[in-house]
Amino acid sequence: MKSKAGEGNFFEDFRVGQRFRHATPKTLQAGDISVYGALYGSRFALNQSEEFARSLGYAAAPAEDLLVFHMVFGKTVADISLNAIANLGLAECHFLQPVFVGDTLTAETEVIGLKEQSSGKSGIVYVRSKGVNQRGETVLDYIRWVMVRMRKQDSPQGTASIPRLEEEVSGERLAEGSPAINVQAWDWAASGSMQRHEDYEIGERIDHVDGTTVEEAEHMMAARLYHNTARVHFNELNERSGRYGRRIVYGGHVMSIARALSFNGMANAFHIAAINSGRHVAPVFAGATIFAWSLITDKRRLRGREDVGALRVITRATRDLPTQDFPTKAAGEHDPGVVLEMDYWVLIPI
Amino acid sequence: MKSKAGEGNFFEDFRVGQRFRHATPKTLQAGDISVYGALYGSRFALNQSEEFARSLGYAAAPAEDLLVFHMVFGKTVADISLNAIANLGLAECHFLQPVFVGDTLTAETEVIGLKEQSSGKSGIVYVRSKGVNQRGETVLDYIRWVMVRMRKQDSPQGTASIPRLEEEVSGERLAEGSPAINVQAWDWAASGSMQRHEDYEIGERIDHVDGTTVEEAEHMMAARLYHNTARVHFNELNERSGRYGRRIVYGGHVMSIARALSFNGMANAFHIAAINSGRHVAPVFAGATIFAWSLITDKRRLRGREDVGALRVITRATRDLPTQDFPTKAAGEHDPGVVLEMDYWVLIPI
Amino acid sequence: MKSKAGEGNFFEDFRVGQRFRHATPKTLQAGDISVYGALYGSRFALNQSEEFARSLGYAAAPAEDLLVFHMVFGKTVADISLNAIANLGLAECHFLQPVFVGDTLTAETEVIGLKEQSSGKSGIVYVRSKGVNQRGETVLDYIRWVMVRMRKQDSPQGTASIPRLEEEVSGERLAEGSPAINVQAWDWAASGSMQRHEDYEIGERIDHVDGTTVEEAEHMMAARLYHNTARVHFNELNERSGRYGRRIVYGGHVMSIARALSFNGMANAFHIAAINSGRHVAPVFAGATIFAWSLITDKRRLRGREDVGALRVITRATRDLPTQDFPTKAAGEHDPGVVLEMDYWVLIPI
Repeated sequence: MKSKAGEGNFFEDFRVGQRFRHATPKTLQAGDISVYGALYGSRFALNQSEEFARSLGYAAAPAEDLLVFHMVFGKTVADISLNAIANLGLAECHFLQPVFVGDTLTAETEVIGLKEQSSGKSGIVYVRSKGVNQRGETVLDYIRWVMVRMRKQDSPQGTASIPRLEEEVSGERLAEGSPAINVQAWDWAASGSMQRHEDYEIGERIDHVDGTTVEEAEHMMAARLYHNTARVHFNELNERSGRYGRRIVYGGHVMSIARALSFNGMANAFHIAAINSGRHVAPVFAGATIFAWSLITDKRRLRGREDVGALRVITRATRDLPTQDFPTKAAGEHDPGVVLEMDYWVLIPI
Repeated sequence: MKSKAGEGNFFEDFRVGQRFRHATPKTLQAGDISVYGALYGSRFALNQSEEFARSLGYAAAPAEDLLVFHMVFGKTVADISLNAIANLGLAECHFLQPVFVGDTLTAETEVIGLKEQSSGKSGIVYVRSKGVNQRGETVLDYIRWVMVRMRKQDSPQGTASIPRLEEEVSGERLAEGSPAINVQAWDWAASGSMQRHEDYEIGERIDHVDGTTVEEAEHMMAARLYHNTARVHFNELNERSGRYGRRIVYGGHVMSIARALSFNGMANAFHIAAINSGRHVAPVFAGATIFAWSLITDKRRLRGREDVGALRVITRATRDLPTQDFPTKAAGEHDPGVVLEMDYWVLIPI
Repeated sequence: MKSKAGEGNFFEDFRVGQRFRHATPKTLQAGDISVYGALYGSRFALNQSEEFARSLGYAAAPAEDLLVFHMVFGKTVADISLNAIANLGLAECHFLQPVFVGDTLTAETEVIGLKEQSSGKSGIVYVRSKGVNQRGETVLDYIRWVMVRMRKQDSPQGTASIPRLEEEVSGERLAEGSPAINVQAWDWAASGSMQRHEDYEIGERIDHVDGTTVEEAEHMMAARLYHNTARVHFNELNERSGRYGRRIVYGGHVMSIARALSFNGMANAFHIAAINSGRHVAPVFAGATIFAWSLITDKRRLRGREDVGALRVITRATRDLPTQDFPTKAAGEHDPGVVLEMDYWVLIPI
C-alpha cells in the first residue's frame, strides 16, 4: 500500500504549463503580526500603527510585505521544492495589494520552465507563483527557480525550456501595490526619520549598523508560521548527517531580518513594491549574527504619483561580519560573510 | 506565618468527590492561534482558514482541538499535579464543542478515585476534568490519573477507590463536537489531500515522514501559553539535580507535534473527536527530533451523519528515530525511541 | 556622506528641557497579549479573561501593566539609551490608564537632568518619559536615569543639573490607573486565591516558589516585541568581546518574569499602580533560572475607594538561587544571586 503522506514532487513530475493550487489557505491573524514582530522587531510605522496607517488613507495597518511573501512562498514548498537541492533565484516579484488581518491567502503556481542538469541527477524547475486573497485578487506574484532532484537518476530526457526573465520589474507595476497616500499627514517623528525620496542618492551606501543573532527556536517558529515545511529547517537528526551537519535557516528569515535592520537608515521606505532578484549566496545557521547594508542603485518618480517615489536598493546581509565597510563580492567571489543579496524597489514619500 | 504561595496538593489532600474550579480562566486570543501555529506548524485547513471553515458551515475557524485540551489541562496542574511524580494516563476525552477566538475557558475537576501505593510514598489520583466556555457549555472533558506524592510519607491509610474506565469512547459521543458540515463545499486542494473516509483501511500504517527538533524556548512558551505550571518544564536549576538532569518537555507538546506531523497522510482528518488513551511512554528533552506514524485501528460511520465518518488511530511519536519502519513496543517493552502512544478518533469527510 | 542610520545620542547631545517624540507608535495587537503570555505565563485573571474583566466593570481585559511599560520604554531606547553604559534607576512610575487591544501607544520624553561624570567619559541623563494613547491620554509616565557615553571623551563641561526625585509615589496617584471595580463580582476561584488586602501584613515575606529558566530566543523576542533596540540584547558577535562576553537579558524581561512568578502568593494583586524604584543590581544571561520573593513594606487604603487597597511591595528576583530564604543584600553588598529589586504598589481587593 502506497503511503498517503506523499514524498513531494521530483524533477520528472513537473511539466511546463502544469498548475498547482497549494494547501493550506491561511487567514492572516492579528497574532501573526505579533509573532512576526517578536521574531524581527521591525519598526516601520505603517505596519506597526493603525493610527499611522489610517492617517495615510489605508483602511488599516497592512501586514509587512515580506510576511505576505513568506506566507505565499511557504505554501508552495510542499509541492514545488520538497526535493530541492537549492533555491537558485527569485525574480519579477510584485506586491500588488496590501494584505490586512482577516484576509485569507491561497497560493497557486504554474510551471514555466524546466532544464535538466547534465549530471542527470537533477533539474531546474522555473515557476511563477502567486498569492490570492479571499476576493480572488492577486496580492503577490513572483518567479523562482529551484534545483530539484530526479526520482530516477541517470535517465536523461533532454528537457530544456527556459523562460525569459526580466532583469528588473517594470516601472508601471511599481506603484500597483500601494494606494495613493495622504503624504501631508505623514508623521515624521512617528516614522523615525526625516529622510524622503530626494534625500537618497544613486550610489549611496547605508550601513544598517545593528546585528541580530539567530536562534534555532526563532527560525523554526518563523518557518512554521509560514507553513514552510522544507525539512532542512526542522530536522536536526537528519541534518546532522547532511550537507552542513546542522539545520539551515530559511533564507526568507534572513530577508526579514535584513528588512527590519534596514529601518536604520531607510525608516520611511514604507513599502516593498517589487523584488528584482534575491539570492541566498551562503547558508545561515543558528548562532550567526546577521548584519546588513544597502546600496541605492536607482531612483524613479512614478507616473501620476505626487506622493511617493521609488528607490532601487541592493541590500546585502552578512553573517558574523559587521557591515561598516560595505562587504560585497570581490573578484567574482562573494565575501564569505555575505549571505544574501536582495535587489528590490521600495516606495518612500517624495 | 504560612506562606501564601501554596505548595500544591499532596495525596492526602484529595477526597473522592472533591471538586475544584481552577484558576485562571482564559479568553482565547487570535494571538494564541498564531503562537500555536508558530510552535507546531499545523496545516489543517479548518483551523487555518476562516474561508474554509465558513464554507463548511462553521461560524469561524475553530481552535485546534489539542490547543483547547492543553488550555484546560494546564489550568488543572496547579491544583492536581503540582506534586505529581508521573502522569499515568488519559481516557474518555471528548471534544464536545468547537472553541472560537473570543471564547473564555474555565477548567473544573472532580476527584473520582484514589489509590494509595504500597510504597507509602505516593498514591494515584483519578480525576475527571472539564473545560467550560462562557456560556456554561462543556467544550471538553476527560479522565486522567496521576501519581502524586504524599506529604507525610509512610502513613498508609489504605485508601483505594478505583473508577471504572472505558477502553474507548462510546460511538454516540464521537460526533458531538462537530456540527454537521457542508461536505460538498470541501475544497480538496485547499485541504491538501483527496483522501476521505473510504480511502483508509483498518490496519493501514502511515509514516508522517517529517521530523521536528524541539527547543527549550518552544516547549516552555507552549506550556506557559497553556498556564501549565509544572515545575519540571521550566526550572533548569532544579532539574539539573532531578531525575533526568534537565528540564522535561510537557507531554502535550509532543502530542501537538505529532498531530501537526500527521497532516502528512491524514490531512483531511479535520477534527479530533475523542482520545481513548494517551500515554507518554518516555520523556522528551530539548534537542530531540520528534517523528510520528499512525496505525488505523477502526473505522466507523456515525449515526445520522452522511457528511463525516470516524477513524480510530493510534499515533506513535518517537525521539531521534525516523518512523518509516513503524516502531512500536516489542516483547512488552517499548522501543526506546517511542515516546508517545495516543489512541484517538478523528473525523474525516465521507 | 553621513550615514542615515544614526548612531544614537551621546551625553553631549542632551540638554535639560529637550523633548523627544519617539518612533515607532504601536497598536497593541491581540497577538501581543499572546506572545507576552507565552513568554511569561502570567496568570492574573483580569488580564487573561475578558469575562473576569467585564464582571469588574472593565470594558475589556486590559493589557498587563508591565507590557505597557515595556512598550513605552522600548521606544525611548533609540533616542535615549543607545549609547548607555548602564541603566541606573527608575522612579515615579505611574500607571494612569488601562490599555486595551487596539490602543495605539506613542512614547515621549523630556530631559530633566544631566550630570557629567568625573571620569570625563560619560554622564548621567535623567529623563521623564510617558506613553500616550490615540486619544492623547497619558497611560504611563516615569523617570529614569541612565549613564551615557560621551562622544568626545575628556572634554568636561561641568554639566550638573540633578532633578529632585520622590522616594515613593504619592498616594493620590495610586488609584488613578484603576477604575472603581465591582468587587462584589470578584470570582475568587477564578483569580486563584482568597487573599485580600487585609490578609497581608507589613513585614510579611512571600516566597514565589517557582523558577523559570531564561532562553536567548525568549528575551530577544520580548525585546523585539517592545521595539527595544539596545544592542547588548541581540548582537552575540559584538557582545562576545564586550563586558560580559555574551548577550545581556533586557532588565524588563526579568521584571515581567518576577511579576508572573508573584502570582504564587499575590494572585489578587491585579494591578501595578506605581513603581517607586526599580534596580537591576546584577546582569542576567540566558541559561539563568530566575526566582523571586516579595516583602510587604506598606499597606494603604485609598481615599474614596471601598473596592481596593494598596500594598507596597519590594520584589527581589534572583538568578540560580531559590528564594525560600529570602535573599537580600548583606553588609551593603547585594547577594550575588539577587538581580532585581523592584519597589512598587499593587492594588488588591479589600
